[in-house]
Amino acid sequence: MSKPEPNGASPPAHDGSLGGFESVDKILEAHVPADKLAHVRRVMNGWNLGAPVATLPLAAPATEAAQRGDVDLQGYRFEAAPEQLRAPRVVRVGLVQNSIQAPTTAPFMQQRQAVHDRVREIIDAAGAAGVQVLCLQEAWHMPFALCTREKEWNEFAESAEAGPSTQLCQELARKWGMVIVNPILERDATHGDTIWNTAVVIGNNGNVIGKHRKNHIPRVGDFNESTYYMEGNTGHPVFETAFGKIAVNICYGRHHPMNWQGFGLNGAELVFNPSATVGELSEPIWPIEARNAAIANSYYVGAINRVGTETFPNAFTSGDGKPAHKDFGHFYGSSFFAAPDASRTPALSRCRDGLMVADLDLNLCQQLKDKWGFRMTARYDMYAEQLAAYVKHDYQPQVIKDPSLK
Amino acid sequence: MSKPEPNGASPPAHDGSLGGFESVDKILEAHVPADKLAHVRRVMNGWNLGAPVATLPLAAPATEAAQRGDVDLQGYRFEAAPEQLRAPRVVRVGLVQNSIQAPTTAPFMQQRQAVHDRVREIIDAAGAAGVQVLCLQEAWHMPFALCTREKEWNEFAESAEAGPSTQLCQELARKWGMVIVNPILERDATHGDTIWNTAVVIGNNGNVIGKHRKNHIPRVGDFNESTYYMEGNTGHPVFETAFGKIAVNICYGRHHPMNWQGFGLNGAELVFNPSATVGELSEPIWPIEARNAAIANSYYVGAINRVGTETFPNAFTSGDGKPAHKDFGHFYGSSFFAAPDASRTPALSRCRDGLMVADLDLNLCQQLKDKWGFRMTARYDMYAEQLAAYVKHDYQPQVIKDPSLK
Repeated sequence: MSKPEPNGASPPAHDGSLGGFESVDKILEAHVPADKLAHVRRVMNGWNLGAPVATLPLAAPATEAAQRGDVDLQGYRFEAAPEQLRAPRVVRVGLVQNSIQAPTTAPFMQQRQAVHDRVREIIDAAGAAGVQVLCLQEAWHMPFALCTREKEWNEFAESAEAGPSTQLCQELARKWGMVIVNPILERDATHGDTIWNTAVVIGNNGNVIGKHRKNHIPRVGDFNESTYYMEGNTGHPVFETAFGKIAVNICYGRHHPMNWQGFGLNGAELVFNPSATVGELSEPIWPIEARNAAIANSYYVGAINRVGTETFPNAFTSGDGKPAHKDFGHFYGSSFFAAPDASRTPALSRCRDGLMVADLDLNLCQQLKDKWGFRMTARYDMYAEQLAAYVKHDYQPQVIKDPSLK
Repeated sequence: MSKPEPNGASPPAHDGSLGGFESVDKILEAHVPADKLAHVRRVMNGWNLGAPVATLPLAAPATEAAQRGDVDLQGYRFEAAPEQLRAPRVVRVGLVQNSIQAPTTAPFMQQRQAVHDRVREIIDAAGAAGVQVLCLQEAWHMPFALCTREKEWNEFAESAEAGPSTQLCQELARKWGMVIVNPILERDATHGDTIWNTAVVIGNNGNVIGKHRKNHIPRVGDFNESTYYMEGNTGHPVFETAFGKIAVNICYGRHHPMNWQGFGLNGAELVFNPSATVGELSEPIWPIEARNAAIANSYYVGAINRVGTETFPNAFTSGDGKPAHKDFGHFYGSSFFAAPDASRTPALSRCRDGLMVADLDLNLCQQLKDKWGFRMTARYDMYAEQLAAYVKHDYQPQVIKDPSLK
């Protein structure tokens, strides 16, 4: 839609993953001299000069499992300043990005079992790494079939409280004493088989603490999600777990600053953004929104994106005039953590399954609130009034027209 | 506050500008091979693969003036897709970043005259480059003396409608047929000599169209602005000029997503963010917020930061336990444009005065609204209710506590 006059760099081979490289971080590491790289990382990643974001050594059983399973395992830590009246509150948090493990033409039972097996393997690695709170990607238990507009895929929908994916997560939550956020396609039998896009929060004892349903539903490109489910009706809940106050902003909700804010107003210290998004559509937006949310709301964000290219049995069109085709484009992974002090970890692989582990000192949230004062200077009363006026049919935008114009 | 365990890159010489390099863009251009750089720029800058953001050739009188004056002059353009029912609406927009031109110990009249002369020179270059809408930096007519807490600096405050800086901008607006946004320290004699942080919008006929006062005031580091002025009382006006609907989000207001949104709700297609911010505090945040705002609100943003290091006559402390000192830190320039499609221009110099010129096709705003649908999916009614509840003293955060916790 923009950028005419190609010149200079010749376009690289255009494969489905838009180049096939692992991450921008790895390109920069390979080519920019160390002294210059320090400047780039300070400005681009919020790293202190001369001090890369600290890597977190992980236990051998975890690293070995990751190597066996070809999982991109990375570990980092974010620290807060020491305080006199509070001890550090360090929580070890994991983000999982996974590809589907069987072709979308395979029997559904087989597809689900294959991805269950794979994710079990990754969660076990996370458990071995000491992860206390873990989040999976959006609708991790199925292909992201919403592009097709075919309703058979609804078979994958399951009960938030008692479905097979929840049961698997409960088993692993108990095994590892881990809080698990389990984003699924939900079938709500209690309300007439309503389908929802839902994140189920499972406590470290294996109990279902509650659930959150996706607040904002896309209608863009192949994201035909509004064909399948409606806007969520669960507000902006914050889940108080054994390891801190967490919330879940599902996928497209990341484009809505007030959605991020809603979780912040309710006290979240860590917000996950389990997503499924493709390169042509959103990759340049991906490094921005989660970080902006972390800064503006003084909390940590764990941004998770699906990985791989998914091909479906029947061709579909994308509303862009191009021929019918069978794939959704490339889900580019690139999961990462963003901190309230504007720092971020490198991204996980754009092409491989991955597990990102980070130690987060939650004290950093309050420290940043105290430093920048964004809550106190926010003038919520002014915006409550503005929105109350805006939603009325007779809203008059505040426009000051140059009187010298005709 | 974070990032322990320095290792790898050795810290570069720590001068006032945190390294003294011109921009991250120039470092990457110098070291990353073209094929890899294309990937980095796609993900980091939103540029199409193999197609750098288009450079805009500028008229010789403009480039010669910039060279004579050691002004970092850069030109780019953002295009929109052709439409069948609307012609392109291309507007040429300029951003000016300038250092102060006389020592802060010089007589005030001399200080003001020196910066007036310099900015006149830069605006004349912009005029020669065909700029139609131009914005200056926050309080461009004076040193950013708010760190000192000394009230003598209020002498620089002037009438928004008839002060010397407004008069200069009016003269140049008439000369070039240019809309000029003139951010000043305002003295409001009509209301008891109240001091405000204000942007005056001057039409292309030299008339004052109106003004906007900074909505959010920082209390962080050396930004002792709350000592000098209060939160603005002008809402979120959009100014309908001969060249489009513009608004101004002054400095610290960029940290508040609802402030950006307020201008969007009133119909802005281009929002300026005239700022004065220093490297140690905010440089890693700078590339994020303006872009997030452009994406979330489907408008262009022109982000402008002051440049240079300003030293004051009397020492002051910074509330960080360090010894009293006389400088505010380095204002790192780095002004840039962000577009609603997530693309951005490179940044202007971190160290030199600069003029950024870009052709913006304003049609891109509506195209992105239609593509992503953020306004239609925003659920403003839900947030109006949330904020109305939140501002009440008896607000109960929506917290779901794990019942198995004690």
